Amino acid sequence: MPTATLLISAPDRPGLVAAVAGFLVEQRANIVHADQHVDPSVGLFVQRVEFDLDGIDTDHLADAFAPIATSHGMEWVLHRSDASPRVAILASKQPHCLVDLLGRWGGGELPGSPELVISNHPDHEAIVGHYGVPHHHLPITPASKDEQEAAMLDLLDGHRIDLVILARYMQILSPTVVDAYPGRIINIHHSFLPAFAGGRPYHQAHDRGVKVIGATAHYVTADLDEGPIIDQDVTRVSHRDSVHHLVAKGRDLEKVVLARAVRLHLERRVLIVGGKTVVFD
Amino acid sequence: MPTATLLISAPDRPGLVAAVAGFLVEQRANIVHADQHVDPSVGLFVQRVEFDLDGIDTDHLADAFAPIATSHGMEWVLHRSDASPRVAILASKQPHCLVDLLGRWGGGELPGSPELVISNHPDHEAIVGHYGVPHHHLPITPASKDEQEAAMLDLLDGHRIDLVILARYMQILSPTVVDAYPGRIINIHHSFLPAFAGGRPYHQAHDRGVKVIGATAHYVTADLDEGPIIDQDVTRVSHRDSVHHLVAKGRDLEKVVLARAVRLHLERRVLIVGGKTVVFD
Amino acid sequence: MPTATLLISAPDRPGLVAAVAGFLVEQRANIVHADQHVDPSVGLFVQRVEFDLDGIDTDHLADAFAPIATSHGMEWVLHRSDASPRVAILASKQPHCLVDLLGRWGGGELPGSPELVISNHPDHEAIVGHYGVPHHHLPITPASKDEQEAAMLDLLDGHRIDLVILARYMQILSPTVVDAYPGRIINIHHSFLPAFAGGRPYHQAHDRGVKVIGATAHYVTADLDEGPIIDQDVTRVSHRDSVHHLVAKGRDLEKVVLARAVRLHLERRVLIVGGKTVVFD
Amino acid sequence: MPTATLLISAPDRPGLVAAVAGFLVEQRANIVHADQHVDPSVGLFVQRVEFDLDGIDTDHLADAFAPIATSHGMEWVLHRSDASPRVAILASKQPHCLVDLLGRWGGGELPGSPELVISNHPDHEAIVGHYGVPHHHLPITPASKDEQEAAMLDLLDGHRIDLVILARYMQILSPTVVDAYPGRIINIHHSFLPAFAGGRPYHQAHDRGVKVIGATAHYVTADLDEGPIIDQDVTRVSHRDSVHHLVAKGRDLEKVVLARAVRLHLERRVLIVGGKTVVFD
Repeated sequence: MPTATLLISAPDRPGLVAAVAGFLVEQRANIVHADQHVDPSVGLFVQRVEFDLDGIDTDHLADAFAPIATSHGMEWVLHRSDASPRVAILASKQPHCLVDLLGRWGGGELPGSPELVISNHPDHEAIVGHYGVPHHHLPITPASKDEQEAAMLDLLDGHRIDLVILARYMQILSPTVVDAYPGRIINIHHSFLPAFAGGRPYHQAHDRGVKVIGATAHYVTADLDEGPIIDQDVTRVSHRDSVHHLVAKGRDLEKVVLARAVRLHLERRVLIVGGKTVVFD
Repeated sequence: MPTATLLISAPDRPGLVAAVAGFLVEQRANIVHADQHVDPSVGLFVQRVEFDLDGIDTDHLADAFAPIATSHGMEWVLHRSDASPRVAILASKQPHCLVDLLGRWGGGELPGSPELVISNHPDHEAIVGHYGVPHHHLPITPASKDEQEAAMLDLLDGHRIDLVILARYMQILSPTVVDAYPGRIINIHHSFLPAFAGGRPYHQAHDRGVKVIGATAHYVTADLDEGPIIDQDVTRVSHRDSVHHLVAKGRDLEKVVLARAVRLHLERRVLIVGGKTVVFD
Repeated sequence: MPTATLLISAPDRPGLVAAVAGFLVEQRANIVHADQHVDPSVGLFVQRVEFDLDGIDTDHLADAFAPIATSHGMEWVLHRSDASPRVAILASKQPHCLVDLLGRWGGGELPGSPELVISNHPDHEAIVGHYGVPHHHLPITPASKDEQEAAMLDLLDGHRIDLVILARYMQILSPTVVDAYPGRIINIHHSFLPAFAGGRPYHQAHDRGVKVIGATAHYVTADLDEGPIIDQDVTRVSHRDSVHHLVAKGRDLEKVVLARAVRLHLERRVLIVGGKTVVFD
Repeated sequence: MPTATLLISAPDRPGLVAAVAGFLVEQRANIVHADQHVDPSVGLFVQRVEFDLDGIDTDHLADAFAPIATSHGMEWVLHRSDASPRVAILASKQPHCLVDLLGRWGGGELPGSPELVISNHPDHEAIVGHYGVPHHHLPITPASKDEQEAAMLDLLDGHRIDLVILARYMQILSPTVVDAYPGRIINIHHSFLPAFAGGRPYHQAHDRGVKVIGATAHYVTADLDEGPIIDQDVTRVSHRDSVHHLVAKGRDLEKVVLARAVRLHLERRVLIVGGKTVVFD
């Protein structure tokens, strides 16, 4: 059965939970999951409430909720689980994250749907085509970057994309692109940030002699590698692991962590609060 | 500031969250944490709400809540964080869990207070004494088990114990003891249950050639090693690890997992539902 | 540069390391990795030595090593890294392990080559075909099992298969098949064995209320779920995870653990000793 | 039975393994463990060989090995397991690492022996005394640092200390102290280095919103937090974890990781190669 998810943030004050819960009782909405969190450092209350859509008219419900939200200073958004988010994947030479994501949609593991893949290399056109997804090859050079990004934005806009995934895209997006999709671009960085930000993190990790390596999925912001972290994971390594081994072990982390972050976002489980995420998993 | 924690379970139906939240608004109770869960397999709603005690008379609040709870079929209990739970530790020859727990209370890491240690060996009397906790040496033989347990129950009763911790106690408690403290005896089993239930789990793990070993903290019930699991953790092992190494690695798991379970219980974060736990962490 | 790998097992006695190392010095073989292990419980010495093939004639080297091996009671095998092992994948309805393995070979992550896929369902024919691998649909019913397995053995034999991977194949192989590929069939079981052996392990895990779930890659033997374990991994779960969530989390474990075990086997890093594995990673 | 451990490093060239193994055969030494590693980036071969002391005169053996070592350009050291290393622990206000280490020696978990505890606070004198270890209270102020460190060096020297453990000592040692114990001072840093080097790492981690926190045991060098890493571990955290919770979760990591590093060092399993460690575990 489809559900609706209400994401709320508001200045913390008594009565918020009661206001929302009382409203949903009145609307005869059957809550299936509810979670909330108060961040005392910024005095913010955030909540995620998921309820069955059975017999509920969400337009009517939204109209009825608006004055309650206003009176409590709430920002809110209502998502229907049957409104499938439209996703674009940006890729480059490395296939593992791209192919893993496509395989997950192919196997019914992820909500939403991949609407297009944009790559600055032509290598993965066949596998993308196999999954029935349009593939756009947009090569990029320092000279052509503006032009390439303009073409990219046209495609994203034309396909009414809700979420952009950087599946080891390896290019830094200019602020124009980032600003067009605030909180809607997810990147996978191949280290446990903030360690080894920047380029060649596996080389950095090898040089430092760490005993764990990691991967970090985060929202892209203007500050490179500084965006809100959605998920991270790590694996043990030893002196036996060359850079080549770290890269190989890292691939498994990257694809699993990226897919988890994508799922969390698409299931409307992530809110951004003060440069960090609240993940209602 | 001290807080109060309300633990609720009830047959799931619409309006439960609203009823509790509305009541607490009326009582001018400032909620600091709230979490809830519905177990669809048994149709049960469980909730944990923690609120500041500032200006709240909990006796009055309890009286006011009782009719609301009754009308919704709720079972509930109210704990004050300033009412320190009284803990007994049962130990045997191995010191690591016992010493670790005492060190945590010594360092202010755990709520509640250790009121007595009962051991069937005299070895740890000095370290227990160092922490100012009474130590009772109750040796046990097959012949003296009934008598030993009767003495133990007298001590637990005399000290008005709220929680009994089996810190590698190595003896099977008879139903008389288990039934006297339902949901209030925590054991640490040195395997990731249900693997290697019963005796000598590290030997079993070595014989089977597993690549991870674990530890499990669970409530003690009449069925040995079958009680509700509170927490588990594992660590990687390899062919290089002899049984001796497994025992050594396992000790670190045992003490950390047991201490986590004890903290979760004492912070009133655990509810038992249908032979399993809900842990609001 | 290609390498050769010598895998040795012998009754433990002094001088084995010196004998092998001395021999390789004489042969002017440049050792790039060496590892050894003694299992005291069975008195067995096992060793893995990898050396550059630069200027080495492995036929000549094998001839020269044979008398040394005989004099020390060694069983041994010599693998060249440029002799690509031939792999068959057995699959059923669930695609995630199959697709993940194909993607890894497609991305150059794994040694060897997938020579054929045999499935009792036709669903994955297109994706297998995309990777240029022959796909054979061999449906199976209780009545047709003997016939299906005979056809399977014909295919495996005809393709001179070195390794058979059960990628969530969901069928129990009869002893005839198992005995034809001793130590050369790898299965992924969707639990941390020996917990939850048998069917529906995620349902079992959910019923028991465990706080970690796992996956186990093992060699297939006549005793179901009892074969030597190659690798295992786990992930944390909570009361929030329904069986559906456990299945989803488990998929990520299954594919990563299975791929690790396949890589370890194909890189000649695994020896079977007394029902367990020695993994020289 | 006691053993001896030979730690060797040498410029990599063919024949090193054969030379050592051949020598030990001649000496009739029964190897119980051997491991080696080549770091191709610096062209260095390192090896750890452990053999039974049964009937072996180590002085004689060392004399016999010296010319072989010289001819291969080896640096080497021979440790007897029955020569118990002498350990000093430096502590400050936080007790958890200190008390954990003392409990491990008390329970027979660690080789070597704690010979003295030096603390800049008097708080832990009683528990240190309980374990029969001399406690020296050396307060420190910016003005008295030189004097305090001189007194400390006198104590370390007077007790012929082999290993110094900084058990959350919280003071930066001056180069004079560091240089006096090269590769023989182990610190625990409360983050997964190189993330959150410097002060208040849990606050930094909370501000950044990471989803894993860690701890790092490393040798102390002149460059703060830059010394060779011996071991690291991490645990998952979420938006629910305040700084206070991170500190609490981190304590369990700190004490386990520090104890592992201490054990590895005392069992002579760690070599320092080019600013990194080789850990033969």
